[in-house]
Amino acid sequence: DGGKFGERWAELCQVYGINVDLLKVEWGYAVDPQEVARRLEANPAIKAVLVQANETSTAVAHPVKELAAITKTKPNTILVVDAISALGGYPLPMDEWGLDIVVAGSQKAMMLPPGMAFAALSPKAWEFVKTSRCPKYYFDFAKQLKSQQKNQTAYTSAVTLTLGLMQVLGWVREQGLEKIFARNAKMARAARAAVQAMGLTMFSKQNPSDVLTAVEAPAGVDGQKVVAEMRKKGIWIAGGQAQAKGKIFRIAHMGYIDEQDLLGTIGALEIVLNELGYKVALGSGVKAAQEVLGKEA
Amino acid sequence: DGGKFGERWAELCQVYGINVDLLKVEWGYAVDPQEVARRLEANPAIKAVLVQANETSTAVAHPVKELAAITKTKPNTILVVDAISALGGYPLPMDEWGLDIVVAGSQKAMMLPPGMAFAALSPKAWEFVKTSRCPKYYFDFAKQLKSQQKNQTAYTSAVTLTLGLMQVLGWVREQGLEKIFARNAKMARAARAAVQAMGLTMFSKQNPSDVLTAVEAPAGVDGQKVVAEMRKKGIWIAGGQAQAKGKIFRIAHMGYIDEQDLLGTIGALEIVLNELGYKVALGSGVKAAQEVLGKEA
Repeated sequence: DGGKFGERWAELCQVYGINVDLLKVEWGYAVDPQEVARRLEANPAIKAVLVQANETSTAVAHPVKELAAITKTKPNTILVVDAISALGGYPLPMDEWGLDIVVAGSQKAMMLPPGMAFAALSPKAWEFVKTSRCPKYYFDFAKQLKSQQKNQTAYTSAVTLTLGLMQVLGWVREQGLEKIFARNAKMARAARAAVQAMGLTMFSKQNPSDVLTAVEAPAGVDGQKVVAEMRKKGIWIAGGQAQAKGKIFRIAHMGYIDEQDLLGTIGALEIVLNELGYKVALGSGVKAAQEVLGKEA
Repeated sequence: DGGKFGERWAELCQVYGINVDLLKVEWGYAVDPQEVARRLEANPAIKAVLVQANETSTAVAHPVKELAAITKTKPNTILVVDAISALGGYPLPMDEWGLDIVVAGSQKAMMLPPGMAFAALSPKAWEFVKTSRCPKYYFDFAKQLKSQQKNQTAYTSAVTLTLGLMQVLGWVREQGLEKIFARNAKMARAARAAVQAMGLTMFSKQNPSDVLTAVEAPAGVDGQKVVAEMRKKGIWIAGGQAQAKGKIFRIAHMGYIDEQDLLGTIGALEIVLNELGYKVALGSGVKAAQEVLGKEA
């Protein structure tokens, strides 16, 4: 599991009567591909490995490429990737790596309002669709494929978001994915430098993500309070979810979030942390971030 | 069944392993409440009666009030109403009539883009939720209720449509439901008068709906061709679905569709029908509709 959304994969499977071999991962850490390989060897009946590309609740990027290298060698196992906050944020070349199902949402790096989901399937995954016995109606991939081959959707679709998506994809094409990914990576490095300069601790102990940064609330400071005080200044950062609630806060730096947003957020955070009793030299985090952002791309 | 969406209720149930006692109803006709009563007597294990308030594919309004009068007397049976195109279009007082579950969509009389669904449950239906064993995750009503009692949604919601909904509901409150319903009813009477004056035949043989009018394509004229020619004029009417495809066309008159829209549509329809070989005196349908619309509300 390793986070709230990892737990959700398991819950979703259990609700639909699917047996789950849950690999426990401490929050803040990434899954170990070797352990996944061992489990697949031990139980060849495992049909799918489900993983978050970016576990949004901990800001850890799981090693999707390494997992795909394992599932690629197993004809009866597919890799299903929750890329809701990862797609468009950092490289996730589905065909090149061998990801079988990638799902994403409109509301993260796709820069649209919530209300739309995407799914892409590999040829290997389409073979699994043929024998799937899970109850489904609106989420029947075979039906959707049939309609999409006629340039239609099987059911009434979210028209306004589709129009918005065309705008976003035009902008993405204009910029180029490489440039977008490089910018997100630089923003992430800047955020991490600021965290270190402020004497704070990253919540993501391994593979910190390029699309958001999760930070431990310093001793004696409530993470939810940090979020609330930032909101009073008109800045939306996120708190922790479930077991991390109150213990962390999370800063997004994907999509249309730019350098001004990030520097302003760090600056305001320094003020808020001081107000809440954690002493940090004003400007220290901002300066560290500036130094990263000021370097050539 | 009685239409495409009646058939869909049955398909949805079957996919989820629910036994369906399908009541066949010829397209264009309304369900007979007495037949429903007979089946419930014959099989007391029936847990729910599922019906479309407005069967959009045939423009027939099923007798929901009469059905509720029957299910109200059965403690183990609820009435589930698909009001996707009915809600906001004509009266459907849930508590007064005793409807147990009413579902609706954003894209019909609620005058919003597609992408949002609504569901309301009676106390009787909430008891059924407690014992439901259908697999569900995002559609878990109990989880949604828990969140909504905290003025939240259980999962990421379609924020833009929610904001739009607040606008619509403000407008509805300002106008008053009675006035909206009366206007829709008058628009429907005008559409039916036009159909008659043009020598056309209603596809809805019983209970023609107040939110849209379904018309048989005259002999020798393809209903889909009527739709295509209208679209060339920038007017969107609907064709028939499934078994009615090519045989009918449908004119909506709900929500923000106003007298100008309706008169313009009928006028353009007269031109198109003449072009396609069905001779109709120009202005005859328009005049009949005008006479209805011109009367006091």
